[in-house]
Amino acid sequence: MQETRLDTARIRAARRVIDPAFLGTPLYRCEALEPHLGCAVSIKLETANPVRSFKGRGSEVVASRLAEDGPQAMVCASAGNLGQALAWSGRGRGLDVTVVASRFATRAKLDRIRALEARLELVDGDHELARERAAAIARHDGIRLVEDSLDIETCEGAATIGLELLDTVPSFDAVLIALGGGALATGVGHVMKALAPDVEVICVQPLGAPALTRSWHQRRVVTTEATDTIADGVAGRYPIHAVLDDLLAVADDAVLVREASIVAGMRMLLDHAGLVVEPSAALGVAAIREDRDRFAGRHVATIVCGSNVDMDAYRHWVGAPLDTS
Amino acid sequence: MQETRLDTARIRAARRVIDPAFLGTPLYRCEALEPHLGCAVSIKLETANPVRSFKGRGSEVVASRLAEDGPQAMVCASAGNLGQALAWSGRGRGLDVTVVASRFATRAKLDRIRALEARLELVDGDHELARERAAAIARHDGIRLVEDSLDIETCEGAATIGLELLDTVPSFDAVLIALGGGALATGVGHVMKALAPDVEVICVQPLGAPALTRSWHQRRVVTTEATDTIADGVAGRYPIHAVLDDLLAVADDAVLVREASIVAGMRMLLDHAGLVVEPSAALGVAAIREDRDRFAGRHVATIVCGSNVDMDAYRHWVGAPLDTS
Repeated sequence: MQETRLDTARIRAARRVIDPAFLGTPLYRCEALEPHLGCAVSIKLETANPVRSFKGRGSEVVASRLAEDGPQAMVCASAGNLGQALAWSGRGRGLDVTVVASRFATRAKLDRIRALEARLELVDGDHELARERAAAIARHDGIRLVEDSLDIETCEGAATIGLELLDTVPSFDAVLIALGGGALATGVGHVMKALAPDVEVICVQPLGAPALTRSWHQRRVVTTEATDTIADGVAGRYPIHAVLDDLLAVADDAVLVREASIVAGMRMLLDHAGLVVEPSAALGVAAIREDRDRFAGRHVATIVCGSNVDMDAYRHWVGAPLDTS
Repeated sequence: MQETRLDTARIRAARRVIDPAFLGTPLYRCEALEPHLGCAVSIKLETANPVRSFKGRGSEVVASRLAEDGPQAMVCASAGNLGQALAWSGRGRGLDVTVVASRFATRAKLDRIRALEARLELVDGDHELARERAAAIARHDGIRLVEDSLDIETCEGAATIGLELLDTVPSFDAVLIALGGGALATGVGHVMKALAPDVEVICVQPLGAPALTRSWHQRRVVTTEATDTIADGVAGRYPIHAVLDDLLAVADDAVLVREASIVAGMRMLLDHAGLVVEPSAALGVAAIREDRDRFAGRHVATIVCGSNVDMDAYRHWVGAPLDTS
């Protein structure tokens, strides 16, 4: 395989510092979904933990390494899930955590960040403005800036999902991974290419937030002016060069899906799997739904990466007619 | 501790024959629930597996032992979850499975039993009539009758949850267990009393299906004329003597909760934990809600034992006002 910034031995080491509450997550065939999708579907469920997303894996690696040098402070920008996770991991280790988020972020995520005793600063703009502000705080205060997907610990943490995916028998033909900043895709993708190169690694992003997918296809960083998607967890505009390089090494494809498919995916996961998921976590099902021929008869694993939703919005989404595309 | 029909070494052995998809289920603090319940709450989640309930643990033990003698047939009565689980475990081992259920059972459960290729027979009555019919089939066909809670394999399978509860640090002060036929309560209760006797074992049953709880309090089998509860998974009327004896040995208390509390519990688990649960799985939260003083300041674990719901009914339940009690 092509080199990436990741290393399988370091990923195995990362697994040893992560709180068990985030590890060994459920992985199971969901046959009730299959008639609706036309292929065998396994779910890797990353929502049944103290922060309801996979981000605890990375935050545990970040915080455990930082805490080796005693009490410290760190700051991150977050759409809400990394912030919760860092707040959780920092609280348990006596680390001071500041989270910068858009004031338009999902309310439930912001509420949980506050409840976990992190300092929360809101910016009047999108996630990219939050990233700028977090960097400015880090420079001013001389504290650790945690940059999702750029900081290798966030990728290594996410990559531990890949190790767990390969514990399963029988294995699958393709894995569908939500694409945001890229930590999840490059982390899991690295493990697949290193240990199970026949598994197709497919990244999925919303049409309304296509920057990293376009970058992957054009093999250079492409930015966008704005995002327009309910999948708040993956709505970035400025891909990171080093992350794109890794993604080019490990992804077999990157696809874009419509908003209506994301909503339909959320509803399918509720109705047929009994799972509440946030929009980003429905990207995999949305991708199958949009390209059934591609997956017909194959065994596909999809990482259900988070369940932090505002319940009002969620009820609206899943109450809407199924076929809105 | 008092003797029961269970044995800790046999429970450890049971764990080795259960498909990993049912083992090592999530166990985590759910802090977002805690302000609403006034105590620390850990969730043991038994819904993220191929049959969406804990019953796969027991069915795996039943089926693996039966399959030792080659292809066989078995029959059980079920409100729907044991039937699904036995169908799943039997299918994978070439065992012929017949499930007898009430025609009033949850549709989604019956649909899944059929989808898992079991023979399904419906009776025009409640679960107790289904039990009679299953026994008649077993006698007539000379096949294995699987009796939930009476057959020790069903208790041993459920008891493996207890072993997993004790892997956690820090541990908790009380465990809340849905009480139906009794396999879950006697199984988990046995492990607690054997290995962590300071943990309070509290069984929870609906006021509308109180037979085993009344039996426990009166220390003799008490039957009821009818049941009236949405918690279909625990709605029995004829407790089993041997199971009651075990329950008397391991339970510290058995409490009854109102229907409105069950609905409120389901809604709390949805709104604050992002979990879809069936009514039986909300009994623990319902019990905390009805007796907050008892649990105030303590750390309580509750086993979320199933998520098989008819979505129409579920949407109706969780859409209703929270405070209907």
